Amino acid sequence: MTGPITSEDDLIARYLRPLAADFPGAFDLSDDCAVLDPPPGERLVLSVDAVAAGVHFLADDGAADIAWKALAVNVSDLAAKGAKPIAYLMSLAFPETPQPAWMEQFAAGLRQAQDGFGLALAGGDTDRRPGPLSITITAIGSTPGRTPARQDAHSGDELYVSGTLGDAALGLKLRRDPGLAAAWGLSEAEAASLVARYLRPQPRLELRDALRRCAAAALDISDGLAKDLDRLCRASHLGAAVEVAQVPLSPAVAKAVGADPGLLTSVLTGGDDYEILAAVPATLAADFCAAAAAGGRDVTRIGALDGGSSVLLSGTGGHAISLPRSGWDHFA
Amino acid sequence: MTGPITSEDDLIARYLRPLAADFPGAFDLSDDCAVLDPPPGERLVLSVDAVAAGVHFLADDGAADIAWKALAVNVSDLAAKGAKPIAYLMSLAFPETPQPAWMEQFAAGLRQAQDGFGLALAGGDTDRRPGPLSITITAIGSTPGRTPARQDAHSGDELYVSGTLGDAALGLKLRRDPGLAAAWGLSEAEAASLVARYLRPQPRLELRDALRRCAAAALDISDGLAKDLDRLCRASHLGAAVEVAQVPLSPAVAKAVGADPGLLTSVLTGGDDYEILAAVPATLAADFCAAAAAGGRDVTRIGALDGGSSVLLSGTGGHAISLPRSGWDHFA
Repeated sequence: MTGPITSEDDLIARYLRPLAADFPGAFDLSDDCAVLDPPPGERLVLSVDAVAAGVHFLADDGAADIAWKALAVNVSDLAAKGAKPIAYLMSLAFPETPQPAWMEQFAAGLRQAQDGFGLALAGGDTDRRPGPLSITITAIGSTPGRTPARQDAHSGDELYVSGTLGDAALGLKLRRDPGLAAAWGLSEAEAASLVARYLRPQPRLELRDALRRCAAAALDISDGLAKDLDRLCRASHLGAAVEVAQVPLSPAVAKAVGADPGLLTSVLTGGDDYEILAAVPATLAADFCAAAAAGGRDVTRIGALDGGSSVLLSGTGGHAISLPRSGWDHFA
Repeated sequence: MTGPITSEDDLIARYLRPLAADFPGAFDLSDDCAVLDPPPGERLVLSVDAVAAGVHFLADDGAADIAWKALAVNVSDLAAKGAKPIAYLMSLAFPETPQPAWMEQFAAGLRQAQDGFGLALAGGDTDRRPGPLSITITAIGSTPGRTPARQDAHSGDELYVSGTLGDAALGLKLRRDPGLAAAWGLSEAEAASLVARYLRPQPRLELRDALRRCAAAALDISDGLAKDLDRLCRASHLGAAVEVAQVPLSPAVAKAVGADPGLLTSVLTGGDDYEILAAVPATLAADFCAAAAAGGRDVTRIGALDGGSSVLLSGTGGHAISLPRSGWDHFA
């Protein structure tokens, strides 16, 4: 079926209904509502995030990558709470009726993402309107116990991050200007690995047990370490001290920063990493690292929370690093 | 606090946080996720709908009316399933940083709506991006038992609608051209009542018991009776016969149709009524009407479902009424 999309029902039937086939409460997307039977005794965790062309992704990013990112950024919020994904609802706004080939790729990206993250499409809404293509997803997960909220950190908690930071920020720069790879001394494979981190964020669901059991507070790093750490500190009414030398870098980012030390600012303030920032009581730090390793994802201690009111990022000589701007803000 | 909005956090703190104060799992909107403890043993019902300036409302509609409509259209979907509203998540996309006076009115409209419908803001997302102002809401409700889905109707079920139809469609016409009131012979109060039906749709939550106990299938009439009845029939693989003379009209709409019989098409195909269309087994019809009346909302029998494949709207003489177009479609 490669003919033009003739109606909203046609678009849903051809591209979206298959994504809901495994979720009985989706009623094959033939209803206005989805029905969800919550796992008995569990709490539900809900997140909503919109991504729009020109703001959160580039209009010429591949349709499969756009779909992946739209779902991944929401599932990443669930991952930070140690929740298991169940289902999602999706609101699509197209400026024009999409081409069948584009929708096919978009649906394929959603399929890869939902299978990878373990959730299904439960319902949605499709509109045509002026403005950029935008995809608003509400993701729903569940957890048997407490969730590590932003506001539950305590003075003395140790600060951990998962994976490596800055890959996506440098990946976006490379996506815009591939010539930078040579200037930074990166191989083709290294450059491609950074671009992939930008295009296909990976929610850290493998940290579920570690976060549920050990983290006092956690969030995903979507808007840069500096800004998201600031958010954690404000919500918990704490200060923080981070040693920048401890911030984990991938070999490719380390090489790029070596070639252009100014890139360290991008590593600390650039968004789109979708790694986890967690505050872990010192008594649980060893357990946290062990549970993370058991899940297959390394975590790195970068500093600690304190009773102060400032967030201090200090360089190798102990001097404070001043940052030009603390991450992305839509209205500042 | 009437100074300009200086950041996303500022916008949230001043206008949105108060709307989440009664929902503990909203964490004062300081987190990326909301936590919801489902009522034990109940199923959750979820709906997502976006409204955008120029598509679903007029850009110069009042901010409080826009907010009301954005929430009401979602709660209306829950109402059609006999669900009790619990909470909502909201994604806002502004083309420019909004003015404080506008945001104040917008928040006031949300407050009126959420208090009226019995739910609270649990979480959200706020962006600035080109294109029309858009508001995407995911509403969550619960129900102890089965929900009347679109696809569960049977041949022989009687078709009922709540309230009166066509008010909002004529209200929109009057909103665009107030001079029509005189042409239709409407008083100022009658014209105002129709415009109010367009601006402030009323989810029929008072039909909850009637729908849960008696309806085989139900949906809200958002895109016009003709189109939504067609959807019900397609989902249930049935045909329908409706006597147009039985379609309930308000005194103002009856007067306008009397003056201009062509308006009957708008009554049958115009959207935005947000009344309920329900398929009720004949054996439960009396119970349905009694339960609806006990809830304070009249319902009217307009026809019945049959085993055929066509949807027949017949006029007073029994002749078929042909409609130029079956309601709104974003992609047709």
